[in-house]
Amino acid sequence: MTNALKDRAAIVGFGLTPFAKKRELSELAGGCQAIKMALDDAGLSPRDVDGMVRYEIETNTQEKYARALGIENLRFYGSVEYGGGAGCGTILHAATAIAAGAAEVVVCLRSRNRGSGGRPWAKTANYVEGDWQFSSPYGLVRPVDQIGLVARRMMVEGGVRREHFGAAAIACRTHARRNPMALMQKPLTMVEYLDARMIADPMCLFDCCLESDGSLACVVTTAERARDLRQRPVYIHAAAQGMGPNASIMTNYYKPHFLSTANTYVARDLWRHSDIQAKDIRCAQLYDAFTPLILVSLEEFGFVKPGEAGAFALDGNLEWPHGRLPTNTSGGSLSEAYVHGFNLICEGVRQLRGTSNCQVADCESVLVTSGAGVPNGALVLRR
Amino acid sequence: MTNALKDRAAIVGFGLTPFAKKRELSELAGGCQAIKMALDDAGLSPRDVDGMVRYEIETNTQEKYARALGIENLRFYGSVEYGGGAGCGTILHAATAIAAGAAEVVVCLRSRNRGSGGRPWAKTANYVEGDWQFSSPYGLVRPVDQIGLVARRMMVEGGVRREHFGAAAIACRTHARRNPMALMQKPLTMVEYLDARMIADPMCLFDCCLESDGSLACVVTTAERARDLRQRPVYIHAAAQGMGPNASIMTNYYKPHFLSTANTYVARDLWRHSDIQAKDIRCAQLYDAFTPLILVSLEEFGFVKPGEAGAFALDGNLEWPHGRLPTNTSGGSLSEAYVHGFNLICEGVRQLRGTSNCQVADCESVLVTSGAGVPNGALVLRR
Repeated sequence: MTNALKDRAAIVGFGLTPFAKKRELSELAGGCQAIKMALDDAGLSPRDVDGMVRYEIETNTQEKYARALGIENLRFYGSVEYGGGAGCGTILHAATAIAAGAAEVVVCLRSRNRGSGGRPWAKTANYVEGDWQFSSPYGLVRPVDQIGLVARRMMVEGGVRREHFGAAAIACRTHARRNPMALMQKPLTMVEYLDARMIADPMCLFDCCLESDGSLACVVTTAERARDLRQRPVYIHAAAQGMGPNASIMTNYYKPHFLSTANTYVARDLWRHSDIQAKDIRCAQLYDAFTPLILVSLEEFGFVKPGEAGAFALDGNLEWPHGRLPTNTSGGSLSEAYVHGFNLICEGVRQLRGTSNCQVADCESVLVTSGAGVPNGALVLRR
Repeated sequence: MTNALKDRAAIVGFGLTPFAKKRELSELAGGCQAIKMALDDAGLSPRDVDGMVRYEIETNTQEKYARALGIENLRFYGSVEYGGGAGCGTILHAATAIAAGAAEVVVCLRSRNRGSGGRPWAKTANYVEGDWQFSSPYGLVRPVDQIGLVARRMMVEGGVRREHFGAAAIACRTHARRNPMALMQKPLTMVEYLDARMIADPMCLFDCCLESDGSLACVVTTAERARDLRQRPVYIHAAAQGMGPNASIMTNYYKPHFLSTANTYVARDLWRHSDIQAKDIRCAQLYDAFTPLILVSLEEFGFVKPGEAGAFALDGNLEWPHGRLPTNTSGGSLSEAYVHGFNLICEGVRQLRGTSNCQVADCESVLVTSGAGVPNGALVLRR
């Protein structure tokens, strides 16, 4: 099977509204603003748009955006499931549509107000259906509970220490403090990290992503058209989705590598279709709803050997400017904003344009990942 | 923009469970059965599957199907919105993924129990949000109410008579009676049609689709691989999605062609990318949640001139075997089963294999449409 995606499509614009813990702007209005910003950034208008891919958890469907923005017709539209696992998938679907000629200018977006989408776990009733019936009754109700069990297993079986998680949190915070859009601007030390209150032992406050409102969008088009637009094109060099066998959402406790199954398959497909390999990459945006996910991704995507991610993080390798792999250089979900990982894609674009606040010198390619513990996806973006 | 979809992918298998007004089988179990049947039909196994596209309204996501069926990994997955508008869109997305090399064997499915998905309009509260706030308070609550207003306008402005709607209903019923899987086996005469009780004037009982449980699946793969499989390949010659400007769901009352906007755009794109045109096609599967949708589609897809669909239907042109365009030859949503239009795709495949119960002689190509009044899609399938 020939993968025809390589460098066929490019991200030519992105936009994002200010993040907030709670904002007045509706998800629809915020999404429209983000799309308009992304189109302005690219030098395009709503009249150019003919495709839209959104997160399935979006509360507004494409026809509302098309109507509000004056888009004449969407000839390709769809959505991608699994919350934070969806981000890179939306870009993959856009690139796929473009490679197949099913659309030419595709908008991908995430617009989220915490109040409207709601927190599913806050609605847990006495009667729990589906996969959750095997975990919720044991107290694994919130995502942090579910990941806490994974983190503990990493500590018991993999020699990971809390300082390793802390190093990932501190790297994100350090980067966030250079990013005026990031919600978290206070410095974070290891002492503060270790003293923080537990949310779901061993996960403390700073192991958890923020809770944020925000709207973000990217515009994807053909490589040909990208050359004539306003910004330096960021090519979608490789893209993959995956879930692996026997996937369950956040609760893969019965597997030898319970958190990493989807990542393993995504990484395998991604590198297979990529001329650029992990060893060539000097900047990563790794999905970070919780700190352990960064460590897992470092191993599964081949930046370090299994068992080495903790020490790699503690040695400062995730930190800009001196680390081997500056990671989540906008602050990520842990310190910029949690918007189901779409900000990681935007920051990948900034790095390849040379406009990040933590700009990696001569950044030629970036790995972006979405989700871990759920079916997910990843991208290799390049200049 | 070059459309690279043409004949690149083929439907190589389909499966469907028995339809029922209310069945005991769960949506997940039914969906698994349908997928297994479709794979068996193609001579493939779950180990071959690497993609899945579902209706967004499905209550089971892909990872549950993958787990239940023993699929190792889905490297492409997504969903398509807008209820009955989604069917052909799922096939388009599968073909797109295959053309781009993002997946090789993609399952598309619809599995529906009326009880579990629910009827949104039955949950209408005192406070109605979104588009519905402009129609629900005026009594346009059920889909039949919404389409009733359209039907009345067709009668007032377009000279359509109830007999025209009736001819479409009778054609579907006539075909259903040759299909042992169809739920409606009683004959239907024009007198019975005209005497039937009104549901939303001018829509009577027989203008409305059935209310059914059922599970259906198709398997899509590359044209190359299709050649070596068990069945004669049914090529996806052209595929389109669309919604047009200012789309609103079922309530496009403020437009000159309020029901047909999406169809118009879908038809334009479809024929642009198709070597086969309406004049070449001798069999159609037209989305038929309500009889007026068939008449609208005949005009919008260019089988007849505007204003001529009613007479075309009344002249028997939708009926097998002597009509110009035998339509919904399995009985369709009106008389086989209502499963958001996926049965129309399966019947299109039967026609091109030569296995329909109302087999059109030398059937070389079929038009299949999904939805009308909502963002939707269409396919030209060929032998």
